[in-house]
Amino acid sequence: MPFNAPIVGIDLGGTNIQIGVVSPERQILGRAKLKTKADQGYDTVLDRITSGITDACAEAKLTLADIAAIGIGAPGPIDPNTGVVLEAVNLRWTNAPLAADLGKRLGKPVVVDNDVNVAVYGENVMGAGDGSRFLLGVWLGTGVGGGLILDGKLYYGHFLTAGEIGHTTLLPGSPPGSTSLEHNCARSAVADRIARLIRANRPSIVTTLTDGSLDSIKSKVIAAAYEANDELVREVVDDVCERVGVAVASAVTLLSLERIVLGGGLSEAMGKPFVKKIAQSVKRHAFPARCRDVDVVGSALEDNAGVFGAALLASERT
Amino acid sequence: MPFNAPIVGIDLGGTNIQIGVVSPERQILGRAKLKTKADQGYDTVLDRITSGITDACAEAKLTLADIAAIGIGAPGPIDPNTGVVLEAVNLRWTNAPLAADLGKRLGKPVVVDNDVNVAVYGENVMGAGDGSRFLLGVWLGTGVGGGLILDGKLYYGHFLTAGEIGHTTLLPGSPPGSTSLEHNCARSAVADRIARLIRANRPSIVTTLTDGSLDSIKSKVIAAAYEANDELVREVVDDVCERVGVAVASAVTLLSLERIVLGGGLSEAMGKPFVKKIAQSVKRHAFPARCRDVDVVGSALEDNAGVFGAALLASERT
Repeated sequence: MPFNAPIVGIDLGGTNIQIGVVSPERQILGRAKLKTKADQGYDTVLDRITSGITDACAEAKLTLADIAAIGIGAPGPIDPNTGVVLEAVNLRWTNAPLAADLGKRLGKPVVVDNDVNVAVYGENVMGAGDGSRFLLGVWLGTGVGGGLILDGKLYYGHFLTAGEIGHTTLLPGSPPGSTSLEHNCARSAVADRIARLIRANRPSIVTTLTDGSLDSIKSKVIAAAYEANDELVREVVDDVCERVGVAVASAVTLLSLERIVLGGGLSEAMGKPFVKKIAQSVKRHAFPARCRDVDVVGSALEDNAGVFGAALLASERT
Repeated sequence: MPFNAPIVGIDLGGTNIQIGVVSPERQILGRAKLKTKADQGYDTVLDRITSGITDACAEAKLTLADIAAIGIGAPGPIDPNTGVVLEAVNLRWTNAPLAADLGKRLGKPVVVDNDVNVAVYGENVMGAGDGSRFLLGVWLGTGVGGGLILDGKLYYGHFLTAGEIGHTTLLPGSPPGSTSLEHNCARSAVADRIARLIRANRPSIVTTLTDGSLDSIKSKVIAAAYEANDELVREVVDDVCERVGVAVASAVTLLSLERIVLGGGLSEAMGKPFVKKIAQSVKRHAFPARCRDVDVVGSALEDNAGVFGAALLASERT
């Protein structure tokens, strides 16, 4: 449908649900953010999405009757044609017919796609993707996710699981379970590595910034220490940038990509120096030489990429 | 055009040119094989292709007037819309308008595409690809090449260089120039590794099979030693299979591929045990679990994949 009435975009995560009412002018008119409570089961999550939509509409001074459609980005592989969530480990769902069930409840068309695909689509239509026809989005957060746009369209592949760059092998021959990009470069992996070095008596400003509680160092702390030129954090983060660059360069070499968008909590907190370091590594490793013209940029929509992307996809597909 | 008259398919390599006249029934009616002599310049290569076509037609008891079109697989990135060879290092060509120049000489439509793309297309239409919509062909020979079929079509990417799995990084952190799949797993790399171990006094049947001349061990020798259960060759080849599997699994994980076809001189000489070992490695490393249903098979057209694929592409595109 043409985007000429408000659409609700939803970023459904294992921990939080983010909801936004998006206007045809691409403004967020109203929002809601609530806990997912996936442990209470599928119906509870549907209840929470429904009440969150009501809240976001109220903030936008609208009712559900004003909403043209609903778009959702959900974790795991999804069949984009049916809106069935095939397997979402952190929601404990298998073959959940989310689009159909929510559509019945709300009496609205509902479109569901993978969360990273949705964010990458949002970036490509109105953010840092700049309408590229050959784009890989890499989302570095708690885990490492990815989404592909090939020949101008979201790409799914045969098993509908495409884009999982976080699970490509980065260090073959390493101990089992430690070979993937995600295992080496997710926020949690970076935090663990910094904590381990500090516990081995390396000095770092992170000790002060966290009051010595090193169990789950946040992206913002890592970013602050990097900006303060902390030697230990520089060493770890620069190595992570090099590794992310190696994995991304292999994707550029295989797919002859035009543009890479880096998003997710770690990348957003770290900002431009992080993106620049990764870009340098990508350009060092991409083949052949003409592929080194690939653009490597940071997310423009940041935390709103999922909400915007979901609304835009719903408009596109209904 | 419909494939209802003979088409010439050409596999243009840095060393040899292989030419076949392919009938609508997909039989090779006549052949020619000649040296490329790329060192003598572009026009010499065109002369040789032209005379080779005449020879192959004569063997088929046809003349050029009977030929509907000509298809060529050439090395390096190629613009499939114009038939310009953008960069072929082993032919010493840059931006060579091969389709236009040969078309003018012969008065026939000429279609040019990358050599591995052409072979992979041939396998997919009438060989081991079995019409898959999401397929990666990996050609292991002197080098390691690749070609992708995504959503049922040959895939080129933004810079028209896609498929270069041989140049994806397999061992990050290794010395410069030694990190790629090709550097580790091409026939020449395997041969060098075997030679190095023998020179370090490891016993191997290869010493006998080559009369001690270890400078460029052929695929057939490696295959014979493997089949004879030679311990050294088993060790090297099994390690190569594991590494190829790791690189291919990363492609499967990123692209959610349905099928992998393994071709090229090394794979063809080694045969089924080689393909099986690589398949096991791919399935061990692919993510998520549903991707482990990917089929990994050996080339069915073997040395004729390029000739058939070029003829089929010419029929498809003229």
